[in-house]
Amino acid sequence: MFLRNAWYVAAWASEVAERALFHRFILGEPVLLYRKLSGEAIALGDRCPHRFAPLHLGRLVGDVVECGYHGLQFNAAGACILNPHGEGIVPPRARIPQYVLVEKYGLLWIWMGTRDLADPETIPDFQHLVDPARATVGGVTTINAHYELATDNLMDLTHVRFVHKSFVDTAANSGGKQSVEQVGNTIVSTLWYPNGRPSALFSKGLDTDIAVDHWFDIRWDAAALMRLDAGMTPTGRPRAEGRQTTGSHLLTPESKDTTHYFFANSRNYGVNDPEMDTHFRKWQKIGFGEQDKPMIEATQRYMGTTDLMSLKPTLLRSDAAAVKVRRILCSLLEAEQQSESNHSAGAQVSEKGDLRGGPV
Amino acid sequence: MFLRNAWYVAAWASEVAERALFHRFILGEPVLLYRKLSGEAIALGDRCPHRFAPLHLGRLVGDVVECGYHGLQFNAAGACILNPHGEGIVPPRARIPQYVLVEKYGLLWIWMGTRDLADPETIPDFQHLVDPARATVGGVTTINAHYELATDNLMDLTHVRFVHKSFVDTAANSGGKQSVEQVGNTIVSTLWYPNGRPSALFSKGLDTDIAVDHWFDIRWDAAALMRLDAGMTPTGRPRAEGRQTTGSHLLTPESKDTTHYFFANSRNYGVNDPEMDTHFRKWQKIGFGEQDKPMIEATQRYMGTTDLMSLKPTLLRSDAAAVKVRRILCSLLEAEQQSESNHSAGAQVSEKGDLRGGPV
Amino acid sequence: MFLRNAWYVAAWASEVAERALFHRFILGEPVLLYRKLSGEAIALGDRCPHRFAPLHLGRLVGDVVECGYHGLQFNAAGACILNPHGEGIVPPRARIPQYVLVEKYGLLWIWMGTRDLADPETIPDFQHLVDPARATVGGVTTINAHYELATDNLMDLTHVRFVHKSFVDTAANSGGKQSVEQVGNTIVSTLWYPNGRPSALFSKGLDTDIAVDHWFDIRWDAAALMRLDAGMTPTGRPRAEGRQTTGSHLLTPESKDTTHYFFANSRNYGVNDPEMDTHFRKWQKIGFGEQDKPMIEATQRYMGTTDLMSLKPTLLRSDAAAVKVRRILCSLLEAEQQSESNHSAGAQVSEKGDLRGGPV
Repeated sequence: MFLRNAWYVAAWASEVAERALFHRFILGEPVLLYRKLSGEAIALGDRCPHRFAPLHLGRLVGDVVECGYHGLQFNAAGACILNPHGEGIVPPRARIPQYVLVEKYGLLWIWMGTRDLADPETIPDFQHLVDPARATVGGVTTINAHYELATDNLMDLTHVRFVHKSFVDTAANSGGKQSVEQVGNTIVSTLWYPNGRPSALFSKGLDTDIAVDHWFDIRWDAAALMRLDAGMTPTGRPRAEGRQTTGSHLLTPESKDTTHYFFANSRNYGVNDPEMDTHFRKWQKIGFGEQDKPMIEATQRYMGTTDLMSLKPTLLRSDAAAVKVRRILCSLLEAEQQSESNHSAGAQVSEKGDLRGGPV
Repeated sequence: MFLRNAWYVAAWASEVAERALFHRFILGEPVLLYRKLSGEAIALGDRCPHRFAPLHLGRLVGDVVECGYHGLQFNAAGACILNPHGEGIVPPRARIPQYVLVEKYGLLWIWMGTRDLADPETIPDFQHLVDPARATVGGVTTINAHYELATDNLMDLTHVRFVHKSFVDTAANSGGKQSVEQVGNTIVSTLWYPNGRPSALFSKGLDTDIAVDHWFDIRWDAAALMRLDAGMTPTGRPRAEGRQTTGSHLLTPESKDTTHYFFANSRNYGVNDPEMDTHFRKWQKIGFGEQDKPMIEATQRYMGTTDLMSLKPTLLRSDAAAVKVRRILCSLLEAEQQSESNHSAGAQVSEKGDLRGGPV
Repeated sequence: MFLRNAWYVAAWASEVAERALFHRFILGEPVLLYRKLSGEAIALGDRCPHRFAPLHLGRLVGDVVECGYHGLQFNAAGACILNPHGEGIVPPRARIPQYVLVEKYGLLWIWMGTRDLADPETIPDFQHLVDPARATVGGVTTINAHYELATDNLMDLTHVRFVHKSFVDTAANSGGKQSVEQVGNTIVSTLWYPNGRPSALFSKGLDTDIAVDHWFDIRWDAAALMRLDAGMTPTGRPRAEGRQTTGSHLLTPESKDTTHYFFANSRNYGVNDPEMDTHFRKWQKIGFGEQDKPMIEATQRYMGTTDLMSLKPTLLRSDAAAVKVRRILCSLLEAEQQSESNHSAGAQVSEKGDLRGGPV
């Protein structure tokens, strides 16, 4: 069960090229992404209503998608506009879902829920991704685990000094200080490690024989949009005198067992230094691919379920942010289902089956 | 749930060599195929009733099959005739199913249902496969989809000009004309594209600067035996003046998710031309392997179920033949189950579990 | 459903090295194995109760295990003794299961059931494994089948002359004689093939132009601990004049579909002959890997269930030992479940979910 009335990242804008049919499973549903001749990005259901062929196996004709199986054509609103056979009768109910799609911050944001509730103004701020004063490196990959386990990983950054010890070792610091704040449905968790040794992630090219403070401040918005403000500054000095990066950690459920992970790192130093780009790409590759991902996927396997709470986990104070996130998600989901059952007669019905992952 | 009282192709006759144990799953059941010393082909259950070892892992001793696990021997009627251990007592109920098997048209036809209902005269005509005036090329492969989706593909040949555009492009023709006729439980669907350009499939070696008519006439018999009469002739001329091929498209369910596809093409021209053989083999390899198969399997994945109708597909006039086929199958299956429950006391009970595909 | 109050082999003692975290699924549960600084072997649950990370991804600090995700530390009794974050509060219920583990005969024996019932004196005799008058070669591998199917294989050794004909061909002998005896819950089955030809397994380096008697005496104790006394002697001569090997066949369920198979062969001849070691290793590799394993796994696939009896197998006299074994297991399991439901209030509750195998 996924929250539908929320913004998810469907793709990096650059993934959806001109004159191409791109597809991805989102919340278990097949989604087709393409651009009109005007450049406007469109998201439709990627399944022909006739024989259920994936539309991305067809072709783009102007602004129209032609199914590759029997040639039905659909416009950018999802309506079937051509049946090339016989008398060419188009059944009036022949249509596919059209999803609200917004291009912003170099990302394509999709709204899988009730169309009327989609307000682009509620997309959280990720302006740093397009800030010319920063250098951004990023990408997208898949996590073979429920997206909430990846959120848990991010919202409890005490894991950093164990999982990512080779990049950030704060064990020598004089104790971490954590705070968690909720504003509306936004969670901000801060973690402060004063007076320690410079970590490898931030100190490339610096003298490492100094004392520093580290910070890791993360902001979460539903369903799984995280911005991580992290950095290092000489002990006692303002953050502005140190080095800072803003991380984007954007999770989109592909299925109940798999997650699209859109990630980026936008630093405010060494902006034109290609070696620094390489340094951060290595951190993303090793830090995620060889450190976080195996751990997150192993917890999924060892849980044997996607319902963490049913296993009665031992909770620590450092879980406060992750637990608040789960509570907010639960109440948003309950509210959405309540509202859906109230208005189910009038609501737009979309396909909810999970076509990805499980056996057919 | 499969129709049992119907003829299925178990194998090409040439697949079952002398002195060899051949096996294949049919309707989810393991079937052993071999030849007696006389050459007669035999079909038995491929599972020892003792410890359930696959009998094809054993060996053939004369006309008798010896289990490779503990050496029990079974004759061509399925009866256990030797226990090689201790006092050699053979439990009277130790036997395996024997299926009716008929060798005809170069194929081995199996009847998985009630033995008394098996009438070889009801095997549909596939005489063209052994017609010396024709050249036949063919083979067998697997489709990872329910067999009815492959039938749908064949019974609606409007897909040809989209899926197989590189071989048959009738888009320039002056509109397709379709008719569907039911005679008893046989469906014949015809498709006629007059006055177009020669298609690559039929025009090898011909002048292509002429106008032609194409036809595609397909006959279906339960459960999934199809004969396709297709060809091309100069516009307005009798079919006999053109080129014609008779296709054999014979589907046998392996499991609910997978299908054996026996296929052949028997052409009436270039009969002794090996290059024409190569041309048709390429069509079979690309046209099926790279065009139909990925499409059929994708629809299966995107349906997420094997029950097409539960998804309320948008149906077009060009679906008429495929829909009639599904209706006939439904009523045959209902009649069979009704009859089975009426006579369940006296009926031969065979193993119905699907041992192929799903997790064990 | 597995018998829990029984001794299982968790590992060869040599598999668990000093200062390393070894892990294995046993009865579907993740088990962590390591050695304290004193060398004592320890078995704990391999799953952190905080975020369910596999503990073997962490590290060993003295006698203590540190979780690799957030750094919680657990002592050899399974109690959490350190939370490295914030105020360092350790929740009192933060603990992992500790299992009784005994090192004996070069093996680590685990008791997954009620701790008070674990009596190391009830570990069956496998002294031959450490007998200096014998040469032992062995190993461990995985069988993709329910462990009872592997037990069936071993407890009916009439399969030898069919499955392992290349090593032991007793077909020329004057008939096998079998006896089965039950003493308490121990089964001993003997098989005697007098006056035959020397088999390849035992006759390496011998004159093979003599008449011999073969014997295969196997002992079983719950749940799946088998000792096989097998050998060959000149016809009519005492066994002590022949060649004898004692086989160890120790099965530990990994999951309901997969089994750890610990095996060894301890021979009383050619004790210092490396070529004889090679001969027996080849027998283990081919005889099991290419002969037994494919057969056992095929029966599992062809049964389509793990419940043999529900398929109503044809039983032979040679199944007597295997059937007695299944009956004893059934009654032990029933007694255990009865006892568990009687004392469920006071009993130690351990995790019973099967985390291995099935989809997550």
